[in-house]
Amino acid sequence: MSVKRKLILDVDTGIDDALALAYVSTFDDVELLGAIGTYGNVTADTAVRNTRYVLDWLGLRHVPVLAGSTHPSWADSFIADAGCAQFHGTDGLGGFGPAADPSTSDSAGAFTLTSRRLISVGGYNVHDRHANPSTDSLTLSFTACDRTESTPASPEGVRFIIDMVRRYGRDVTVAATGPLSDIDAALTAAPDIADGLRLVMMGGTLTQEGNCWDATAETNIIQDPEAADRVFHSGADVTMVGLDVTHQCLLGSDATAQWRQQAAPTGVRTFLADIADFSIAANLHTDARLFSAGMPLHDPLAAAVALDPSLVECFDLPMKVETQTGDFHGTRGRTVGDPAGLIDPAVPRVHVALTVDHNRFVADFTRRIAGIRR
Amino acid sequence: MSVKRKLILDVDTGIDDALALAYVSTFDDVELLGAIGTYGNVTADTAVRNTRYVLDWLGLRHVPVLAGSTHPSWADSFIADAGCAQFHGTDGLGGFGPAADPSTSDSAGAFTLTSRRLISVGGYNVHDRHANPSTDSLTLSFTACDRTESTPASPEGVRFIIDMVRRYGRDVTVAATGPLSDIDAALTAAPDIADGLRLVMMGGTLTQEGNCWDATAETNIIQDPEAADRVFHSGADVTMVGLDVTHQCLLGSDATAQWRQQAAPTGVRTFLADIADFSIAANLHTDARLFSAGMPLHDPLAAAVALDPSLVECFDLPMKVETQTGDFHGTRGRTVGDPAGLIDPAVPRVHVALTVDHNRFVADFTRRIAGIRR
Repeated sequence: MSVKRKLILDVDTGIDDALALAYVSTFDDVELLGAIGTYGNVTADTAVRNTRYVLDWLGLRHVPVLAGSTHPSWADSFIADAGCAQFHGTDGLGGFGPAADPSTSDSAGAFTLTSRRLISVGGYNVHDRHANPSTDSLTLSFTACDRTESTPASPEGVRFIIDMVRRYGRDVTVAATGPLSDIDAALTAAPDIADGLRLVMMGGTLTQEGNCWDATAETNIIQDPEAADRVFHSGADVTMVGLDVTHQCLLGSDATAQWRQQAAPTGVRTFLADIADFSIAANLHTDARLFSAGMPLHDPLAAAVALDPSLVECFDLPMKVETQTGDFHGTRGRTVGDPAGLIDPAVPRVHVALTVDHNRFVADFTRRIAGIRR
Repeated sequence: MSVKRKLILDVDTGIDDALALAYVSTFDDVELLGAIGTYGNVTADTAVRNTRYVLDWLGLRHVPVLAGSTHPSWADSFIADAGCAQFHGTDGLGGFGPAADPSTSDSAGAFTLTSRRLISVGGYNVHDRHANPSTDSLTLSFTACDRTESTPASPEGVRFIIDMVRRYGRDVTVAATGPLSDIDAALTAAPDIADGLRLVMMGGTLTQEGNCWDATAETNIIQDPEAADRVFHSGADVTMVGLDVTHQCLLGSDATAQWRQQAAPTGVRTFLADIADFSIAANLHTDARLFSAGMPLHDPLAAAVALDPSLVECFDLPMKVETQTGDFHGTRGRTVGDPAGLIDPAVPRVHVALTVDHNRFVADFTRRIAGIRR
C-alpha cells in the first residue's frame, strides 16, 4: 500500500483557486487533508462557502473546509475590492458560485468609514485613494468585522495548520494561494512549527512587475505585507510562486472548449469552463497585451509546484517584504531581496521560482481537467 | 605572440571608476583601446580630467581619453548632485583629484532655473523635489550646457565606440560604469553595431533594492532611463552587473591598509588607498548596515566581469527600464523584466548577474592593487 502525499490548501476562492482545487482532485496519489478559506479575492465567509461548493462538486465531500483569517494582520476588518470583483466576479466565481446564505448577511448595518478601526479594502487602508470597495463587500465585511471581535482566538484553519504540521512535519505541504495571514498566524502562535513547515505560496514577484496600482506589489502580498515578511523570515521552507512564473502559464479558450466537449450542461467541467472563460474575458479586457493569450494560472501553478517541484527552477535568496512607501522605504507590498541577507548567512532563504516549464504545465493542467468525469 | 584582449571603458570617474581603471591596468594581456569620460558621478569635463589623471598615474599615458555625453538623452544639460558628492567628493575623487582647469569654469554665468530647458540634476529633473545639486556643480554644468548647443554632432567618445565595434566586433568588450547615454547614442547613430556590441554595464538592480530615493532605481540608470531601455532592447550582447552582485563585493579598510604598506606617500597606491578610504568612510556614515563591511566595488566588478565572465552567474531575461512613475506605470528608473518578452521570443534577453564569487573577486582585486609598483 503506497502512502499518499499529503496536502493542505489555504485558499481565497476565487476562480483560479477553484481551478487549483479541481487540478489537485485529479491526483489519485494525493490526500487533501483539508482546505482553509481565507479573505482575499473575497471575504473569508465567501471563500469558505465557495471552497465547500467546489469540493462537493468534485466529489471531495470528505475533505474538511475550515475557516481562516477574516482580515489582514494589520487591520481589524476586510472589504473585498472592485479589482477582485472584476477578475473573479463579486461572488468570487464569476457569477457561477452558490447563492449567499441570507443568515450571514442579514446582520449587516450602516458602515461608518469615520471609524477609528483599521479597515482593509483589498489590502489598502480604507482611507487610501486606491481603496475601492466592490458593491457587495461592504455588507459582508461588516459582518466579518463583528465576528472578529467576539473570537480573539486563532481561527480554526490556523489551528488546523499548526496541528497538521506538528503531526506530519514536511510530509505535508501547505499550498497557500491567498494572503499569508493564516500561515503567519500559525507561525506566530506556534513558532515551533517553522522547522517542519513546507510552504508553497502563490504571491509576490521578483523579476516582473506587480499587478497592483503601483505595478510593484502583487495582489496577495499587498493584502498583508507584514504577515508575508514574517513568513519569509520564519525559517520555514518557503517556495515563492510569483508573477515571475505564473505570467508564463496562460490558459486560453482553446482549453475551455476542450473541457466542454461531451460535458453535461450541469456538470463540473462545464462549471470550470464557465468560470475560466469569465477570467479569460476579464483578462482580455485589460490593457496588458500579455493576457491576450489567456488567463494566468496563478493558483493552479502553485498547487502543481507543491506536487511537482521540478516544474520550476528557483533562485534561493533572503527575501523581505517592504511595509512602507516613501523615500528610502521602498514600496509597500514589494517582495525583494533582503540586503541583511547579503552579509548575514543566518537570514533564511526563500526559493523564488524564476523559470517554469510552462508548456508542460499548461498541457498537463488542461488534460487533467478535461479528464474529470463528473 | 598572443593577441591581447581588447577593452573600452566608458566611465564617469568617480572613485570606483578610478579603482576599475587601476584594476584593469594590472592585466598584462589586456589592451585598453580607450576610455570615454561621461557625465554621472561628476560632469563630463570632470570625468575626462579625472580619467586622464588616473591613467597617467597608472602609466597608461598612451591610452586615449575621449569626451562622452555631457547630459542624459532626455535633458539639455546636467548638474551633478549632492549625493554623488557625498560618496565621491565634489571633484569625484574624494578631494584627491586634480585641480579644475580655470579656463573651463571661468565662463560660467548666472544659472536660471526658470529656463524652459530640461535640466538633469543627478538624473532628476531640476524641478523634482529630489533634485539636489552639489555646491560646485552649477558652474560646471552651465559650461557643459553651452558646449552642447554648439556641438550637435555625436561626442568623440560615441564615434569611438562606433568605430571600434565596427572594426573589432565582439573581440572588443565595452565596459560602461556610468549612465548608458554614450552606448545609446552609438546604437542610435549606428544601429548596425548592435550585433557586434558586447557590453558589460554596471547599473540597475533586479532582485535587490535600488540606491536612489525611492529604493527602486539604481544611480546610473536613473540618470538616463530612456537610454538604458533602448540599450536593453537593442539586441546587443548586454551583461547587467547591478546591485544584485556589487552589494556583495565590499572593500574594507583592511585592504587599503595593505595597499599602503611600503607605498610612497606620493605614489599611486597611496592615492588609491586615499580615495577608497574616503568612500569606505562615506558608506559607513549611511544608515545601511550592509556597508559597515566596506564600500561596494560597483565599477571594478563590472570591469572584472568584462575580463572574466565566470565571476558571476546570470539569469537571462528580457529587460526593460520604466520611464514613468505612477499608477500602472511603475517607477522611473526601475530595471525589471519586460512582460512583452514572456510571450514574444523576439524580445532580446539581457544577461543579469544574480550571483557572484565575491570572495574570489575581492581577494583578487585587493591583491592586484597591492601589487602595483609605482
